[in-house]
Amino acid sequence: MPASFNTLWLRFQPAALLRWLIVLVPLAVLVGTLCSAFLWSLEAATEARFAHPWLLFGLPLGGGAVGWLYYRFGTSVEAGNNLIVEQIHEPGGGVPLRMAPLVFLGTVVTHLFGGSAGREGTAVQMGGSLASWVAGIARLDAAGVRIVLMAGVAAGFGAVFGTPLAGAVFALEVLAVGRVEYGALLPCLLAALLGDWTCQMLGAHHTLYTVHTLLPVSEWLALEPVLLGKAALAGVAFGLAGLAFAEANHVLGGWMKRVVPYGPARPVIGGLAVIALVYLCGTRDYLGLGVWAPDDHVVTISSFFGDTVYPWSWALKLLFTVVTLSCGFKGGEVTPLFFIGAALGNALGGVLGVPPDLFAALGFVAVFAGAANTPLACTIMGVELFGGAHLVPIAVACFVAYVCSGHNGIYLSQRVGVPKT
Amino acid sequence: MPASFNTLWLRFQPAALLRWLIVLVPLAVLVGTLCSAFLWSLEAATEARFAHPWLLFGLPLGGGAVGWLYYRFGTSVEAGNNLIVEQIHEPGGGVPLRMAPLVFLGTVVTHLFGGSAGREGTAVQMGGSLASWVAGIARLDAAGVRIVLMAGVAAGFGAVFGTPLAGAVFALEVLAVGRVEYGALLPCLLAALLGDWTCQMLGAHHTLYTVHTLLPVSEWLALEPVLLGKAALAGVAFGLAGLAFAEANHVLGGWMKRVVPYGPARPVIGGLAVIALVYLCGTRDYLGLGVWAPDDHVVTISSFFGDTVYPWSWALKLLFTVVTLSCGFKGGEVTPLFFIGAALGNALGGVLGVPPDLFAALGFVAVFAGAANTPLACTIMGVELFGGAHLVPIAVACFVAYVCSGHNGIYLSQRVGVPKT
Repeated sequence: MPASFNTLWLRFQPAALLRWLIVLVPLAVLVGTLCSAFLWSLEAATEARFAHPWLLFGLPLGGGAVGWLYYRFGTSVEAGNNLIVEQIHEPGGGVPLRMAPLVFLGTVVTHLFGGSAGREGTAVQMGGSLASWVAGIARLDAAGVRIVLMAGVAAGFGAVFGTPLAGAVFALEVLAVGRVEYGALLPCLLAALLGDWTCQMLGAHHTLYTVHTLLPVSEWLALEPVLLGKAALAGVAFGLAGLAFAEANHVLGGWMKRVVPYGPARPVIGGLAVIALVYLCGTRDYLGLGVWAPDDHVVTISSFFGDTVYPWSWALKLLFTVVTLSCGFKGGEVTPLFFIGAALGNALGGVLGVPPDLFAALGFVAVFAGAANTPLACTIMGVELFGGAHLVPIAVACFVAYVCSGHNGIYLSQRVGVPKT
Repeated sequence: MPASFNTLWLRFQPAALLRWLIVLVPLAVLVGTLCSAFLWSLEAATEARFAHPWLLFGLPLGGGAVGWLYYRFGTSVEAGNNLIVEQIHEPGGGVPLRMAPLVFLGTVVTHLFGGSAGREGTAVQMGGSLASWVAGIARLDAAGVRIVLMAGVAAGFGAVFGTPLAGAVFALEVLAVGRVEYGALLPCLLAALLGDWTCQMLGAHHTLYTVHTLLPVSEWLALEPVLLGKAALAGVAFGLAGLAFAEANHVLGGWMKRVVPYGPARPVIGGLAVIALVYLCGTRDYLGLGVWAPDDHVVTISSFFGDTVYPWSWALKLLFTVVTLSCGFKGGEVTPLFFIGAALGNALGGVLGVPPDLFAALGFVAVFAGAANTPLACTIMGVELFGGAHLVPIAVACFVAYVCSGHNGIYLSQRVGVPKT
């Protein structure tokens, strides 16, 4: 047994550590820089969209142009996040570097003209393609490529949301349903921290959400079981919402591909559909990211952390986002999932007789936990965003949502490690 | 793909859910009750030891008596935690029910006479043996036995430390190095919460530790990278301390078994050795749990959260505990690991020029993370005990400690899932 002592010291190779740092540090700084530019561009695009409402009518054309760019230059990177997850499972052809500029540009176009989409997919794809490029330069073997790809994903996710630990765990957890392996944790943690620091040092700032409700310590033991029971019930709804989101995207996306085989035509149709939805529903609140608005009359994620209850915002955001994404617009799924979750939590707060702001926080992370099959990363994200006071209800909501969301999440190249019962 | 919707509803079986609740709820309440009685007994024993210092001289005799009890009636349960981990991996003969009273009694004797030991081993063994008994009554199949055993471990761990989420994750994470699987997470979470609530409703209270240091938000970006670099350095020391603790126990314990084959004689020798250590070192501060003392002159875990720096407390506690446990006294390893970690963190605070209270908190969870190969449970425990403000440094310390602690942790029946590099 004392052999493990020897092995430890024999295996400690400063040269190997240095080699890893030489690969990971520039990669994470690069990803963080790109994420900072991306966040800045999203802000500028969103401000422009509010300042010039007529931009909405450019959505079909903008989407069509991006669709044509992908059709002409981007068929190798169209699989997006799924391509990266596949390359981590079985390093092979690598992820082409062109994925980064294409998805950056495509996502900014989506948001400038008012498509309802997110940003994590973009950050993850920028991180993954840069990582693949760096791994090629450093001539890493397959095991090394896997680690660097995961680190790139962690850096992108950590930087874009300002949640480095959640980013690191996400990169490990997203690969397979029901199982986490620690092999690449330290490289992922380092990359996520460096990515986040770089992004913040370059001026990016993240919206703060505050849960004002706190259980009174004196009555904690009497209240917590009831609260957690309701968190579990809400978790079932969060899981089903995540499942509905993922399935609706797969089904409508597949159907669109069959009915409209010519790629660039799909976002044109999608853009027209979003415009129709705006007039049908009589609101523009569900366009774009849903994070920032010039005035308080527009519903954003922050709205759900107040006292007003919004019963159907979650369904409208789900509808706008599924139409946008399944027609081929570029952008992530996660910020809309935050929106849908916070809105559903807020709505359930009224039904279940619990504080809407607390349940908005639970939904914020738990719908994503269900849709992406990443309950652990989402629990950690909950602590990074809302503090440690609500750790246990957050974990209950995330894990119940995970159990209730089925096996097909938003990432179809995710494998099933340990099936849900 | 819409099939997964159907599968979900087809698989939702209220009868199965009810059956699980009928097994898990009484089990968790039982384990929580027993843990409450155990914590109460430990308090009484510790108070008696401080009130009657001569009790120390009963240590050889008390240890010998417990050793004889195990020799006569307990050979089937001597493997303790390892037997439970083995039965989870390959359910077979089960865990005899007599483990619970034997380990309860044995641990209280250790603490009454001043052996340096912990309590998580005892709680885990009480939880595991009760779970095995309940699984037998409910006639579960092998898969069911696994889940119920893990739930018993989670309930014991969660109740004894008042950290339910850490208890649930611990039960999943302790089985294999480098891998967590989610199969039994909800049963473990339910059992840990119920165990903790029961234990607290019956009057158990847990010591609160407070980290007063907070990074000023305005300088956060400038300070955090340096702080995390130092947390990583400290993490190396925490991992090596955990490794040293585990190896010293294995080596000294193995040597004692060869040199003194008659079981009951070993604690007699160990008791004499602990008495000798008290007079050699001129202090009784490293006896017992190290959590409570009648006055402030005695060093306890709380001491390390103040401003005073204790350079060598960690080494003395390590010495006292290794001598106690490797001579066959009953009790856990974890509370001494908390003590060693908090003391080492406090000592490193002085060396590294960082707040001793913050680094005491890091060491508290990280030495245990290294010794038990459970970095995730320990990170979560850090949030449950010290709040979410220090999540990232806690995670860095725990995961670096984990990477530096080798593959042989304190639980030898733990398997290696994903080797550390």
